[in-house]
Amino acid sequence: MKLLQINGVTIDDTYAEAFPIWVSRVIITGATKYWAHQAATEATGFATSCIGCAAEAGIDYYVSPEESPDGRPGYAILICNPSKKKLKEQLIERVGECVLTAPTSAVFNGIVDAPEKIPVKLHFFGDGYEHQLKVGGRDVWAIPIMGGEFIGEEEFGVVQGVAGGNFFVMAENQMAALAAAEAAVDAISGVRGAICSFPGGIVGSGSKVGSNKYKFMKASTNELYCPTLKDKVANSKVPNGVGGIFEIVIDGVDAKAVGTAMKVGINAASRIPGMKFISAGNYGGKLGPHQFKLHSLF
Amino acid sequence: MKLLQINGVTIDDTYAEAFPIWVSRVIITGATKYWAHQAATEATGFATSCIGCAAEAGIDYYVSPEESPDGRPGYAILICNPSKKKLKEQLIERVGECVLTAPTSAVFNGIVDAPEKIPVKLHFFGDGYEHQLKVGGRDVWAIPIMGGEFIGEEEFGVVQGVAGGNFFVMAENQMAALAAAEAAVDAISGVRGAICSFPGGIVGSGSKVGSNKYKFMKASTNELYCPTLKDKVANSKVPNGVGGIFEIVIDGVDAKAVGTAMKVGINAASRIPGMKFISAGNYGGKLGPHQFKLHSLF
Amino acid sequence: MKLLQINGVTIDDTYAEAFPIWVSRVIITGATKYWAHQAATEATGFATSCIGCAAEAGIDYYVSPEESPDGRPGYAILICNPSKKKLKEQLIERVGECVLTAPTSAVFNGIVDAPEKIPVKLHFFGDGYEHQLKVGGRDVWAIPIMGGEFIGEEEFGVVQGVAGGNFFVMAENQMAALAAAEAAVDAISGVRGAICSFPGGIVGSGSKVGSNKYKFMKASTNELYCPTLKDKVANSKVPNGVGGIFEIVIDGVDAKAVGTAMKVGINAASRIPGMKFISAGNYGGKLGPHQFKLHSLF
Amino acid sequence: MKLLQINGVTIDDTYAEAFPIWVSRVIITGATKYWAHQAATEATGFATSCIGCAAEAGIDYYVSPEESPDGRPGYAILICNPSKKKLKEQLIERVGECVLTAPTSAVFNGIVDAPEKIPVKLHFFGDGYEHQLKVGGRDVWAIPIMGGEFIGEEEFGVVQGVAGGNFFVMAENQMAALAAAEAAVDAISGVRGAICSFPGGIVGSGSKVGSNKYKFMKASTNELYCPTLKDKVANSKVPNGVGGIFEIVIDGVDAKAVGTAMKVGINAASRIPGMKFISAGNYGGKLGPHQFKLHSLF
Repeated sequence: MKLLQINGVTIDDTYAEAFPIWVSRVIITGATKYWAHQAATEATGFATSCIGCAAEAGIDYYVSPEESPDGRPGYAILICNPSKKKLKEQLIERVGECVLTAPTSAVFNGIVDAPEKIPVKLHFFGDGYEHQLKVGGRDVWAIPIMGGEFIGEEEFGVVQGVAGGNFFVMAENQMAALAAAEAAVDAISGVRGAICSFPGGIVGSGSKVGSNKYKFMKASTNELYCPTLKDKVANSKVPNGVGGIFEIVIDGVDAKAVGTAMKVGINAASRIPGMKFISAGNYGGKLGPHQFKLHSLF
Repeated sequence: MKLLQINGVTIDDTYAEAFPIWVSRVIITGATKYWAHQAATEATGFATSCIGCAAEAGIDYYVSPEESPDGRPGYAILICNPSKKKLKEQLIERVGECVLTAPTSAVFNGIVDAPEKIPVKLHFFGDGYEHQLKVGGRDVWAIPIMGGEFIGEEEFGVVQGVAGGNFFVMAENQMAALAAAEAAVDAISGVRGAICSFPGGIVGSGSKVGSNKYKFMKASTNELYCPTLKDKVANSKVPNGVGGIFEIVIDGVDAKAVGTAMKVGINAASRIPGMKFISAGNYGGKLGPHQFKLHSLF
Repeated sequence: MKLLQINGVTIDDTYAEAFPIWVSRVIITGATKYWAHQAATEATGFATSCIGCAAEAGIDYYVSPEESPDGRPGYAILICNPSKKKLKEQLIERVGECVLTAPTSAVFNGIVDAPEKIPVKLHFFGDGYEHQLKVGGRDVWAIPIMGGEFIGEEEFGVVQGVAGGNFFVMAENQMAALAAAEAAVDAISGVRGAICSFPGGIVGSGSKVGSNKYKFMKASTNELYCPTLKDKVANSKVPNGVGGIFEIVIDGVDAKAVGTAMKVGINAASRIPGMKFISAGNYGGKLGPHQFKLHSLF
Repeated sequence: MKLLQINGVTIDDTYAEAFPIWVSRVIITGATKYWAHQAATEATGFATSCIGCAAEAGIDYYVSPEESPDGRPGYAILICNPSKKKLKEQLIERVGECVLTAPTSAVFNGIVDAPEKIPVKLHFFGDGYEHQLKVGGRDVWAIPIMGGEFIGEEEFGVVQGVAGGNFFVMAENQMAALAAAEAAVDAISGVRGAICSFPGGIVGSGSKVGSNKYKFMKASTNELYCPTLKDKVANSKVPNGVGGIFEIVIDGVDAKAVGTAMKVGINAASRIPGMKFISAGNYGGKLGPHQFKLHSLF
């Protein structure tokens, strides 16, 4: 095994297994940063994993007034689904229910140069009172609402991205691992095109595909990585001295974004006192065709 | 028309029309307030209105360590659906995908004395490594996970509550109306048993049932309350001098909680400079049987 | 030594040494919770320790609209100084520079029944355009400002409270200790009359009175409690297996509030995985006359 | 008068009067973004205006792990004082009391190429146990503390910057003006080298130099800009139809940063519905020699 250490933490000679996913980016602007953030938070909620959620979603990056289509502050979010049809449904519902309803919000396509676009007919909400105009050079609808007018584009670029990029942070105890995971998420928040869709960006209960005992389960606890089972399962992969493990899972618009996110995340996590080891999850191809070798990131 | 003024703001002599909904309360605890909040935010996301979301959900109240079943800080959330079957599905998915996965979280039933309970079999995630114990006098499962152990109750009380309690804040302009709506949401956050499920608690695009022009729409803009349409529609209900309107929609465990929330919300909104008028939405019984007369609240 | 364990964590048989301090409570309200919080944060900044700051200050509790003098949301803050004269100066400057200047704020006395009151003449800012009125049964001044009118009481109750209540959380490593300290601060935030004035409520660099080497220093690192010096100093008080220590310092309106805060804080800290030991700081009476015995809290 | 309109809002043909100030930038890093922010918030509190505070201070920008000296997330703050001697005192006290005490923090010089440096002897806190090392190519001290080791540079670049850059946002009512001010602050937060030191970045009670009635006051309400005094003072500068005014005050490392901040701030404010007019404060040279003509910014 090749030995690699980052900031004194050993990086496992393994790879993260990932899979293709369809990704759209939605730019949500608001009168203030606060209101744009409220809309983005609602629109990306209940979207950790497509195992049980209808989408995977998260906030990608802050859009400054200078950069945003309407000169107001905003947030770019990613919405992802392995099925393009379901992604379309989710775009309609998340934009319609969580952005159109949010005070002062407007919505714009966040992947302008995508070869393919998904139509999201928001303007029907206007019941005939809506009209078209240009904002920031884009064709948008203005829909009269109680709050004033909702401005929205109706076509959103879609690209084939990568889901499930991941790594495991392993530390002396639960809290050191959690701080390392949080530091990783902080660092990844600076990478455009990559999101961590789980609560606070972190997976507390990393899973394996399927279940040994309960065959009806699509996923179940990854017992080989459970610290409390170290002495109870054969071939536990919990290193000696490790008492807490968290997983970071990354979706991105392409493999480059996911790889960059993994790199900066691992770098950040490795600086936390108490960190011991970093590995990644792979499932023999059961999950998907993408492989991110940890050692190749550095 | 009986004239009522609160803090100088006229309260319309009308009522809010609301409908029955099934409600469960879930208490989510975490190692710290921050982590409990992250889980609660994810679990209540994408849950503004059952028109397009699979549930209506929101944070009900903060649970102090002294009050919480496991002595840790937490948040009580409400999850609501008109169909008990769909509520069960949503409980399983939101708790399973957004709380079980959240770092350091645990989950408990938030309506202990409910006559009816919904089973949520989280422990299958343990793949046979799970075990039962008592925490705070409650029967829970401990599921080994990467982060340590997830502690969870598996039965959640369900009660028939009330959805769609509402009022409209109308002000000189959009920003005064928004500040009034925000003040209302701040006040309602102190009422146990009531949530505002929309982004930041506020509806920017209040709707009517159905659509006149696009018959396939379940809801569309409420043109009578759109300030920009005041001179374009017959019988506009936008009072003179009003330039911005936001709607507050409230779901609660019972009519009393919803009524109290409406009262404290209206009180708070009326104190904002620029506020002109407060009304409420009703739809001739098309929405539901509950009626909250604004004047009777005071 | 009497052995006491809370949630499996050993509580040292020692006491926290504390000293008398003058305390005023200021209630700051705002149009919304957000704006009240902004004012309260500014007014309590740069106020960790009177060793180098002109005051010790922190947010005491949230004041709901129902409870607040003007029916708006607010925060009660404590401002503390061993010298009554300096407390008066700090009240004038912190209220004048950080609350009067804050958008939409108003200010009220937070200890109505204090036997003694400190006058803070805000109304001179009005340059003669100010006028008196009653708000919530209190005598206040209304000062015309750009934003509208600033409403403020001018007398603030002062009581002799207690400063320096404290305990040390000691854990396997830095991050477990930090999480324990954060959990303690979360719990203490629920105790009315007690604040943690340090950044995020936590002291990263607990000190001893004076310095052995640099005689001009009023305080210096408490080497007996530095994990990295465990093998370099005689009589280190760092227990075996402890790699990180944080101190919680509490000021309060009376000894009861400080004692309650210590109790709920220790309780909360002890629940964090990786926690080993809880002790407290005392300095042979050099700091002050108050003693809080840890074992007597439980 | 030359007429200039930005997004339909009239920009007054006037200038902001500003004055020279000494400025240091301090980079505060932490284990996570959250902890760096806590330290930065405490260190920049009670620092709105040198009229009554010992410094003017604020958060300048977020420092990503890639950019920060120690590879951890951080915040750059500015600390400002017209007197270089007082700035030194404030650097010592704010870094010593609010950063050294903050959990997991480290501190670095934020103006590396400044011709002049202020020494801040933090290492005496180490009482002889401190040692020197290099971090990110910088000479730092490592001071053993309870939490682990505090890492800090001891020399901070100082430059002569500009204080008091300002503009007034004037809107139909208080809440529209406040939203415009908030939008301005959001936009200015993206300008490196510029801060808004008041609570939430906004001045609710803009002042004039001195007082007409109370000669002992260094500053008092600017009655010409008070909406409630429009009909009570001669020569009121409150335009017809304006009911709320807030001031944005900007300090920066140089005139360019202040001018850019004014420009992006005005741009953002002008997009808020209900905005009427933007002006700026000048005092016939009594405040200082710098002049920022509003029309020249565009």
